[in-house]
This record gives sequence, C-alpha cells and structure tokens, in this order.
Amino acid sequence: MTARRPVRVGLIGFGTVGTGVVKILTENADLLERRLGGKIVLAGIADKDLSRDRGVKVDRSLMTDDARALIGRPDVDAIVELVGGHEPAKTFLLEAIAKGKHVATANKALLAASGPEIFAAASKAGVEVGFEASVAGGIPIIQVVKESLVANRIGAIYGIINGTSNYILSRMSHEGSTFEAALAEAQRLGYAEADPALDVGGGDSAHKLAILSAIAFGTPVDLSAVPTEGIAHVTPLDIEFAREFGYAIKLLAIAKQEGETFEARVHPTMVPETTLLAQVGDVFNAVYVVGDRVGPTLYYGRGAGSEPTGSAVVADLAAIARNIWTGSAGRVPVMGFTDEGRRPLRMKGMDEIVSHFYLRFTVRDEPSVLAAIAGRLGENRISIESVIQKGRAAGGSVPVVIMTHAAVERDVRTALAEIDRLSVVSAPTVLIRVEGGS
Amino acid sequence: MTARRPVRVGLIGFGTVGTGVVKILTENADLLERRLGGKIVLAGIADKDLSRDRGVKVDRSLMTDDARALIGRPDVDAIVELVGGHEPAKTFLLEAIAKGKHVATANKALLAASGPEIFAAASKAGVEVGFEASVAGGIPIIQVVKESLVANRIGAIYGIINGTSNYILSRMSHEGSTFEAALAEAQRLGYAEADPALDVGGGDSAHKLAILSAIAFGTPVDLSAVPTEGIAHVTPLDIEFAREFGYAIKLLAIAKQEGETFEARVHPTMVPETTLLAQVGDVFNAVYVVGDRVGPTLYYGRGAGSEPTGSAVVADLAAIARNIWTGSAGRVPVMGFTDEGRRPLRMKGMDEIVSHFYLRFTVRDEPSVLAAIAGRLGENRISIESVIQKGRAAGGSVPVVIMTHAAVERDVRTALAEIDRLSVVSAPTVLIRVEGGS
Repeated sequence: MTARRPVRVGLIGFGTVGTGVVKILTENADLLERRLGGKIVLAGIADKDLSRDRGVKVDRSLMTDDARALIGRPDVDAIVELVGGHEPAKTFLLEAIAKGKHVATANKALLAASGPEIFAAASKAGVEVGFEASVAGGIPIIQVVKESLVANRIGAIYGIINGTSNYILSRMSHEGSTFEAALAEAQRLGYAEADPALDVGGGDSAHKLAILSAIAFGTPVDLSAVPTEGIAHVTPLDIEFAREFGYAIKLLAIAKQEGETFEARVHPTMVPETTLLAQVGDVFNAVYVVGDRVGPTLYYGRGAGSEPTGSAVVADLAAIARNIWTGSAGRVPVMGFTDEGRRPLRMKGMDEIVSHFYLRFTVRDEPSVLAAIAGRLGENRISIESVIQKGRAAGGSVPVVIMTHAAVERDVRTALAEIDRLSVVSAPTVLIRVEGGS
Repeated sequence: MTARRPVRVGLIGFGTVGTGVVKILTENADLLERRLGGKIVLAGIADKDLSRDRGVKVDRSLMTDDARALIGRPDVDAIVELVGGHEPAKTFLLEAIAKGKHVATANKALLAASGPEIFAAASKAGVEVGFEASVAGGIPIIQVVKESLVANRIGAIYGIINGTSNYILSRMSHEGSTFEAALAEAQRLGYAEADPALDVGGGDSAHKLAILSAIAFGTPVDLSAVPTEGIAHVTPLDIEFAREFGYAIKLLAIAKQEGETFEARVHPTMVPETTLLAQVGDVFNAVYVVGDRVGPTLYYGRGAGSEPTGSAVVADLAAIARNIWTGSAGRVPVMGFTDEGRRPLRMKGMDEIVSHFYLRFTVRDEPSVLAAIAGRLGENRISIESVIQKGRAAGGSVPVVIMTHAAVERDVRTALAEIDRLSVVSAPTVLIRVEGGS
C-alpha cells in the first residue's frame, strides 16, 4: 500500500461528545491506522473554556479559543462541529465548507432546520458532510439507510430515538412512578438536562426523524410540519391499562412512505409487549427500518453519551479520510439520493393518519354509557377491538378503556369531540396511538 | 453530476438468491439510479438450468449455461457468485478476479474455508470482494463491522446467525415439541433443507462466525478449530428447566477478543428471557457487536431468503459501482483491516472458556446426592448459583439442575467426569452454557 498522508482534523466544541472523540482518536489511534491504512490526526481543538479538566490528556498547544482561526488553518482537512445549537455552529460549518474542508457534526437541531442550506453548500464545494452522530448516537443508522439498505424502497422507519424519554417511561413502567418523579430521577442521574423540554417534549426526536425521513425517502422534510407530542401527559394509569392489553408505552418517532406521500410524527405510542421495541429499556435507542426487499430490520444501541456518540463521529472521519486518500469525495450523496434523484413527497397531516387507538374515557358510572360511546365511534367508522370497563366507583367517575381497530385519526377526533360533549363524560378523553397491533 | 457509465453485472447461479438479485435490479432500477447517480445493469445470467420459471421476467438473451464465457466477457465489470459450495464457485471467483472483475458472493462456506486465498487474489488484482450476503442475510453486519464501528476495538460479536435452528428452537420452546418434530415442521415449511446437518449441526453458524471474527478482530481464523455444537441434543426438558431459571435456549455463535487471544464457538446457549436475543423468534437473525467505545449494539433482521439476501448482494454491487465511478477500488480493505494491520491472535481452546453453566444431573433419589455433586464441583473451583431439585420419583431417577457462577470449562469437564462416575448418577450429565447471566 502506498503511504497515505495523515488526515488532519480540527475539533470545535470540547464538551461531552468532543471529549469522546478526542479519547477515541488518541487511545484507538493504532487500531484506526490498522483498519484504515493511514492516520487521523487531531490538529487542533477550539473551545471557549481552555482550562476545564475533561479527564483526557491533550497537548495544550492544540487548544485555542478561536474557532475561526482553526477553521482557517490550511493544514486542517476536516472540521468536526460539536458546539450544538444554531449559531455559531451554522456559521462554523458554512465557513469550513467554504474553505473546502470536509465537515462532521452531531448537530441534529441544526441539520433538521438548516440541512438543505448546509448540504447544498457542501455539494457546491465538493466536500463531505458526515452526520452519523446526529441520530441515535452510536447506532450507525445513517450509513445503514444511505448505503447498506440502498437496494430497498423504505416503507417505514420508526423507533425510540430519545434516550431521556425512554429512561423516564421505563422507570414509570417498572416502578409505577409519575412522570414528574421519573423525570426528577433522570435529572439526578444526569440523563435529563435541567431544561428537559426538548427531550420529553418530543422536539429532539422530531429533529432526528426529519433527518431520517429525508434520507430514507429522498424527500425534503419541513421540520415545523412534523406533528410532535411529548410524554409529560402519560400517566401511571395509562401505563397500567396498556399492560392489561399487553402493551408498553414508548415515545416513538414514526415515518412511513406510501406512493407519493409520507408521514412523520412523534408521540407516545403503545407497542405490543412481545416486540423488541417494548424490550428496549433504560437510555437505549432502537430504530426499525422496513425495506421492500429486506423486510423489517432493527438497530439497537446507545443513543447518546460521550464515547458512543464519539464512535459515530470517528466513523464519519474515517469515511472522510478514506475518500481523501482515494480522491472519492462525493462517492455517496450526502442525503443518500443525488440532488436530481430527490423528489418532494407530500407530508400527510395528522388527521390523515391511520392507526389503532387506545381511548380512555372518564365517565359517570351509568348503564347507558358504553352504548353511547360505542354508538358515536361506530357512526364515525371506528370499530372496537376490545374494552376494559372496571368495577364501580362509589358515585364518582370510572374509566372505560377502548382499543380500536385501524381508524383514520380525523374520524377519531370527530368522534371524541362528540363524546366529550356527552353529559355522562366527566373529563377529556385520553388518546394514545398504537403501533404493531393486530 | 457528470454522467456515470452503467456498471455491468454478470450473475452466476440463478437460484433463490439470484432470483432476488434479478428482481431487485429490475424492479428497483429507478430507485437505485436515484440513490447512486448511475445505473447497475444486468449484463448476463449463467445457470445450468435455462428453462425453469423463477417468477421473474428476464430477457432470454441474457441467459447462458456457460459461466466461464460470462466471466470472460469484456463488457462485464462485476461478477456475482451465487452458486454456493466450494467448486466450481471458487474457480469462478478466482477466474473473475484474475480477469480484473470485481466480485460479490453470498458463499459463507467458501469464504470461511478459502477466504484468505480469494482475498489475496483480489488484493493483488485491485478488485473488490463484496460478501455482505454471506453472513446474516439482509442484516448489514459486514459493513457495520468494517466501517460503521471502525472506531471500536470489538470485544465481542455474538448472536443468532442460523434461521433454521432458531425456528426449530422457537417451536420447541413455544409448543413443547421435540427437536425431531420441530425439524420436520421446518422442513415442511421450507425453512430446513432435506439434509439439515449444516444448519442444525452448527456448521453454517461456524462458517459465518469465522468470517465475522476475522473482520472484527483483524486475525486469521482457522475454521476447523472453531468448536461447534448443534441443537439436536436439546430436549424439551432442558427448555423447560431453562424457563424456570428465566432463560431461553438459542443457538449462538460467540466470538470474544481479550488481549492477544480470542475465542470463537457455536453451541446451544441459555440467554436471559428479558434480553433482546431471547425475543428473536422464527427464522430471524440478530447479532450483538460490543465495541469498547459504543458499548453493546444489536442488528436484527431476516438472515436468509431470496430478497433479503438479494438486498445485501445489491448493497455490495452499489458499493462496487460507487468505487468504479470514483476510481476508489480498495477504499475499504476487504477484511476490514489492511494486510499489514492484521495480526494473528491465538484462538482459545474450549477448555479455557469461562462461562456460566447449566448442568442437569440424572441421579438416584437419595439424600446424599446433592452433597456429593456439590462437593465435586467445589473441589474443582465451581460455585453454585442456584439449584432446582424436583420432587421424588418412585424409585427411579430424578433430575437435579444446577446453575453455576462463572467457571472455567476445563474445571467443569473434570468435575463432570468425576460426578458421572458416581454410583448415584444414572445418566451422563447434560451441560449447556449460559451467556448474559449475573
């Protein structure tokens, strides 16, 4: 093999993931060279905080607080952006691209919102944008979708892509705790941030889903149009009823393609307890990809954390290095489809979605109630799969829980609006969508 | 994008997987071009049987019964070998490589035995060898190990990589049927061949494990040294006891690396019922890859079948096409490590393996029996985790079942030899290894 010149990497953002990247490039340098046939060298690290001890040994001379100077260095081949958020991360990436540097990023929020602009700039400049680390941490879902499953029209891609929410729902399920108590525990353990809104509100999952559905279906995805519902309203009572029906409640991100339309949505979802997704506990992530040829496939692993996410960043750097050495930048289109091959699909509105539904009604304990509810459902083309009606409360309200067969969400909303106006109904009905049912 | 000339593929072996490849290249041609920016064209199909209807439309002029003529055609860029077995498959591959054709194959038996020879020839000729389809069918485990997890020293790779055996064990577990009955059902459904020895005897899993451990650890692997035990001796009784301890029995292929040694072995294995592997049913495959950075990751999907395996073949062809278009053949070393980067590790013998063990003793129902067994185990440094001793049989033999803590297999074998000589022991002790226990 001819000698391959070292590929020199500039890292911007020396936080949790940055530390993982530095550790891997340092501690597994020999292994990487044995695999790649060349070296990936850390040429510089930019961060505002030059003094904090990250628990990793770094040559002090590599560090700078001037990110733009690092981007401008002619000896740097690739820039890793791990600053997060929109600005200045976006400016850093666009500047690096403009200077002909390959880039890698874990920044899902930025890519979900400004991906097209960044990818177009990279395409024009002939540089790579690696974003394996932006979705599902260490799980190599981006390469799987863009390359490994290239033979497949992808019908669906869905799964658990927010570890914080999965941890909270797992605690609630195993210990019967409330959302608030489980969130507090997650914060105590460092699994949830002080402001958990992006995680438990579903926004983080929506960012990742927008990226996944764009590369799976070859369509632009308008992040603001992705219906997104978090887990704060999931109650121990619903988890308990779900279990009685044989289901677990997970925060799923779901995208499906059908003809010239697709859907993308994030919401708490009941999945059969016998499925692999239901078994995914703790902070782990798991993503199903269903191809028209391969059928269902699943990818499972740590969706966050310093070294798991660092593993994905370094995989991107390795691909960039291989492309530099073989002169093959642009070998795989950044979005998994060529620019000409991408094709806008219409995103379905939530009212068009077909799903099974879990409906928990809160009603006065009167004999005619079930008939009244069933009647309204039937009039709206919703058929009932099973019902749980529990023993009498002394004069108060009782829950009636119904699992429906497949129904259109618009019809369900119409029926619920009618039902919630009935005098026997004493609280708004709870709706949770169901996937993978019969 | 500059126009990319079509990449022309010659297919040898128009059987189950060949049909899948033809279907995908034909039916998803537009999708592939949108993803790749160029066409993959079927240039010819060689098979001994030119008349059988495969349920796929093929231009009759593409077909030939002369594989060597197809290999020799100057307009063919890549050869797909789906003949299976050793010869003439090996000759076809080596001839194609000698003529400068890239090749792709699903032939695990050939690669496990003659991989080094084929890979060396390809390396010398500067052509690619795609073998994604050789392990775990549609699951992209080869690309994951060679590329996506490149940042990781892989400590372990293990899982269910034979669908036939998994189907049989799943039936036995769910229906309490015997091995023979479940095998007969698998044969009736087309999940097992008339001669099932390679599947149920573990040989097929050993082939795949030899390939996986070679690319995961960067070491040569001597297939003949891989300890291989099939599932024919698994009984409903052991499945039932496993369940009482909270385990399922699966045929696992297991490879682990530690320092300068590695182990690779195939045998029925108890895995905790709460783990994902235990939930993998039917003919599905699932492979865990544990990296030092990413932690545990799992890959699940169809491990066999026409289109799932075809999906993997076409992924290889797509990678070959991308390399042709960008002039980057050899971009990723065929075995995941450069030739210089590979390093022989010592393969541990089975007697060195450390595992937990399930031991089912068949003993006369006498008070001193458990003490005698426990004594021999203790003398051999084996400590007991739990015991099931069932009610008395009228004068006959009863089972005593012991789960051990981690122990060295050599010690267990020594202890069992002593125990099986005791007069109170009336049948050879059954041993099943346990993974993932406490």
